[in-house]
Amino acid sequence: MLYEGVIQDLIEEFGRLPGIGPKSAQRLAFHVLQTDPAEVARLAAALTEVKRKVRFCEICGNVAEQEQCAICRDPRRDLSIICVVEEPKDVMAIERTREFRGRYHVLGGAIDPMAGVGPDELRIRELMTRLSSTDVVEIIIATDPNLEGEATATYLARLLKPMGLRVTRLASGLPVGGDLEYADEVTLGRAFEGRRLLDV
Amino acid sequence: MLYEGVIQDLIEEFGRLPGIGPKSAQRLAFHVLQTDPAEVARLAAALTEVKRKVRFCEICGNVAEQEQCAICRDPRRDLSIICVVEEPKDVMAIERTREFRGRYHVLGGAIDPMAGVGPDELRIRELMTRLSSTDVVEIIIATDPNLEGEATATYLARLLKPMGLRVTRLASGLPVGGDLEYADEVTLGRAFEGRRLLDV
Repeated sequence: MLYEGVIQDLIEEFGRLPGIGPKSAQRLAFHVLQTDPAEVARLAAALTEVKRKVRFCEICGNVAEQEQCAICRDPRRDLSIICVVEEPKDVMAIERTREFRGRYHVLGGAIDPMAGVGPDELRIRELMTRLSSTDVVEIIIATDPNLEGEATATYLARLLKPMGLRVTRLASGLPVGGDLEYADEVTLGRAFEGRRLLDV
Repeated sequence: MLYEGVIQDLIEEFGRLPGIGPKSAQRLAFHVLQTDPAEVARLAAALTEVKRKVRFCEICGNVAEQEQCAICRDPRRDLSIICVVEEPKDVMAIERTREFRGRYHVLGGAIDPMAGVGPDELRIRELMTRLSSTDVVEIIIATDPNLEGEATATYLARLLKPMGLRVTRLASGLPVGGDLEYADEVTLGRAFEGRRLLDV
């Protein structure tokens, strides 16, 4: 033990958080020591409150403080389109674009046989139940553009197409503001595949 | 507001910590959501306990849970040498070397006129009081090897030398395990200045 009692405890607890190494944990603990007690109390309270209050939306699986999340409760959202994502933070990333006015379905991950995650571990059954009771016409699959996300997208597309739904996938291509010479081959290949006619 | 109530609160509180940007704050908050409640409760408790229990040693200014810190309470420490540092974390860095068996004096910063920190804002008066009542023979000045640390070291040396004390400064030079070609000119210059005779 390098520090006395409670300081060492705090350093260790900070060190358990993802992306916080021993040096950062120490820096954070010493910051707390020098911070206004009211601010530290607010952080401690926010931690406790999140565990006490946050649950998952019974419709889409997004984080919520009520039985349904703010998006599912919003009557202005288009009920005919569902965007399928892996995690609640993906919902927020898409909301920030203000491009999508439908509703979401959070899977809780992606199919990853190496990690023992199959379709049964994801909220796919809940998606099916949802589809049988609402008038959905399009499913946008917005899983991550990596191996697991692609596998999940293919699995879902095969499952949903026979139901007569329009199943789409977010476009892959060059990131806006990026540099063509730094794009990896797969992304550049996808950008060629998905090229569009310029109307000028 | 991007997230609902308490999640957003937690993201904002994490974001106030040093070195935690908006993305990290969000990642940490979602980690907390998925973490065992007991572990989150431990972090919240550690934060509260640190503010409730930790105070500063009445002798050296280091962090302590009693009136005096563990080092000042230790009767085996050499009372004739005091190592002067800027912050409590510097004490711990030096303790890890196991090279020093004297006691410390924590200034609480360094002289920095641009930030409005002069000698009166540091625990220099407390150091003087300490020197008048104990038999100290050497003061090792271990402030940071930067502009503010050097200014503080010079100030202290001028103050302490007339008192007949041996005033020393930690050696500057090449870091062990480092690469000579990557050393900056000032460090390399100091390494030349402080070169030692090899006894072989």
